[in-house]
Amino acid sequence: MNYDHSSLRLHKKYQGKLRISSLVSIKNKKDLSLAYTPGVAAVSKEISKKKELASILTLKGRTVAVISDGSAVLGLGNLGPEAALPVMEGKAVLFKEFAGVDAFPIVLATQNTDEIVAAIKAIAPTFGGINLEDIAAPRCFEIEQRLIKELNIPVFHDDQHGTAIVVLAALTNALKIVKKQLSSVRIVINGAGAAATAIAYLLIDAGAKGENIIVVDSQDTLFRGRPKMNDEKKLLAAVTNPRLIHGGLATALFNADVFIGTSVANVLKPEWVATMADKPIVFAMANPNPEIDPKLVKKTKIAVFGTGRSDLPNQINNVLAFPGVFRGTLQAGAQQITTKMKLAAANAIARSVSSAAIKHGSIVPNPFDRHVHLAVARAVERAA
Amino acid sequence: MNYDHSSLRLHKKYQGKLRISSLVSIKNKKDLSLAYTPGVAAVSKEISKKKELASILTLKGRTVAVISDGSAVLGLGNLGPEAALPVMEGKAVLFKEFAGVDAFPIVLATQNTDEIVAAIKAIAPTFGGINLEDIAAPRCFEIEQRLIKELNIPVFHDDQHGTAIVVLAALTNALKIVKKQLSSVRIVINGAGAAATAIAYLLIDAGAKGENIIVVDSQDTLFRGRPKMNDEKKLLAAVTNPRLIHGGLATALFNADVFIGTSVANVLKPEWVATMADKPIVFAMANPNPEIDPKLVKKTKIAVFGTGRSDLPNQINNVLAFPGVFRGTLQAGAQQITTKMKLAAANAIARSVSSAAIKHGSIVPNPFDRHVHLAVARAVERAA
Repeated sequence: MNYDHSSLRLHKKYQGKLRISSLVSIKNKKDLSLAYTPGVAAVSKEISKKKELASILTLKGRTVAVISDGSAVLGLGNLGPEAALPVMEGKAVLFKEFAGVDAFPIVLATQNTDEIVAAIKAIAPTFGGINLEDIAAPRCFEIEQRLIKELNIPVFHDDQHGTAIVVLAALTNALKIVKKQLSSVRIVINGAGAAATAIAYLLIDAGAKGENIIVVDSQDTLFRGRPKMNDEKKLLAAVTNPRLIHGGLATALFNADVFIGTSVANVLKPEWVATMADKPIVFAMANPNPEIDPKLVKKTKIAVFGTGRSDLPNQINNVLAFPGVFRGTLQAGAQQITTKMKLAAANAIARSVSSAAIKHGSIVPNPFDRHVHLAVARAVERAA
Repeated sequence: MNYDHSSLRLHKKYQGKLRISSLVSIKNKKDLSLAYTPGVAAVSKEISKKKELASILTLKGRTVAVISDGSAVLGLGNLGPEAALPVMEGKAVLFKEFAGVDAFPIVLATQNTDEIVAAIKAIAPTFGGINLEDIAAPRCFEIEQRLIKELNIPVFHDDQHGTAIVVLAALTNALKIVKKQLSSVRIVINGAGAAATAIAYLLIDAGAKGENIIVVDSQDTLFRGRPKMNDEKKLLAAVTNPRLIHGGLATALFNADVFIGTSVANVLKPEWVATMADKPIVFAMANPNPEIDPKLVKKTKIAVFGTGRSDLPNQINNVLAFPGVFRGTLQAGAQQITTKMKLAAANAIARSVSSAAIKHGSIVPNPFDRHVHLAVARAVERAA
């Protein structure tokens, strides 16, 4: 189904998708005096004495900014801030609909790292958390790291960590199907951008061995000493692929148990799948067309298959993670989203799929089932 | 009545006052595909081709940012951004409740002019308009002027222009009561900050004569060549008080028809009122206590009296202006709020008071009557 026309009509009908409304009605002088002057002066004075009170006396404590510079909008590329706005507004809709988190989109008129960091730091007192979105790599890494260091509210680049959490959850259940252990499987990650990098690190944090992981970019595998690697890739090469395997994806896949694609359509050849280990797991998450044509999968030995598409089984989608992650983080009043919290979120998502469903090949829960998001929120809050 | 306790309780109960919610519900894959991916990609692509479409396909076209650096919060001074947040959130409530305008509060972690301008320019693609609020003078003048010049969305410092619009409206009706003409009355403005400056200019734009206006600060009257004047005061002194009258408020008031106070409590002495012209008009807008004790007014010859207080008649309050001004500006798709639009707003407010009410001494409409805001919006839209 082509949603283009219907989606345009929907956006035009409502002039976007988010509404801001008042929790109090202002019908008379008393209402005005409580919500605004003179009554609000008492609230301002309390907060000026102890600024942490802003989290319980204003929207700050329950509101997340969804921020993009428009440099990597969906899979469409650098479309600029205005074109990113409907995506960020949509993301804010999902925060509210799935986890009851108030979220507001902010798109930035700059793609300069220093200016982005300065602007986000300037507006940070308004928000309880910052969700970064659709910012191109490698800029996104520095922006996130600097903000985490310099702000006292949680900062989360969803394209990295949201994806990593859901991949870990999906892989946890997929490994149950093929009866393999995370600590011993050989994993190939194709693509070496924001998502791939975060996936590699989170899998290692969850127990995968760096020596069993190979990350591949458009040039070749990543390995120590390879030319044409930015700082992030050098760091990744330092903790993966110790045998310095090279020769691109074809070589990397030999005997691999898991393929994780965050790249482009049709780069995974069926003949290469044939060289993978027994019962391979393939997550082909390129959008809109996966790394291997889903129609070809049945003819291969792939045991568990997932994609990023909503019209296929096992959709590996960030939406399973970010609403609950922020809900739990805000509830805990946590200042950072730690590795422990990310692992707890992945575990909660994995455990939301019943053993019976897993036996039938289902590795991720249905995001429209609100229980998942509440389970993630609870797990993250406890881990905080 | 003391609202402090009730207001604190209200803010705690709701964790602030604004809610962000979705205009579309997300119950299934189709909903998700229309509001988010893949459908939203079509919306992004359209906007990337013509970024003006963001105003009709996203919340941008109906959403105003209410922005403060926390340097002049209410009459309380420099309390910082967190303490300004409940005030900005309250202002956003009034935008929605009075004129149906979506508004979102943004408080800034900097009080540096260049950094404020840079941050607001960075987030501007998100919004259809910028309402600046509670930013100390004289910084507020430069910030507003630079943003008006550099952005293609309307920028409005409400402490200046909102106040000026409502003062002009109130004065228009007060002059009807005392049967005097704006073009010939002598006006003293006490205080020379953001509001006073904008009032002086808008009264001149409306037909008052600069030669009949004297602005007074805490030192003396403003006059050409006076020491200790910043650039804004020098500009004001160049167009007012040509006879270089000095000797402070007492001298300035001699034979004056109108006193407009944007200063502090009890600076207007009854014995000075006695030296004013016949049937003087006094707007004593200092908060929370007016420039002259309202209990003393009856013993003076003051013919029309207004204050900033909600518990007295003739409350001269910005809330009569800003909701309708932005509603009309957004409806017109105007890129600036021009003098013509401000004059139209003042006129619409003045005309919202019936002749009968004016005869009974009432010079401003009731802000809880939604008709005022719609009348302002229509007038501003037509003037745009």
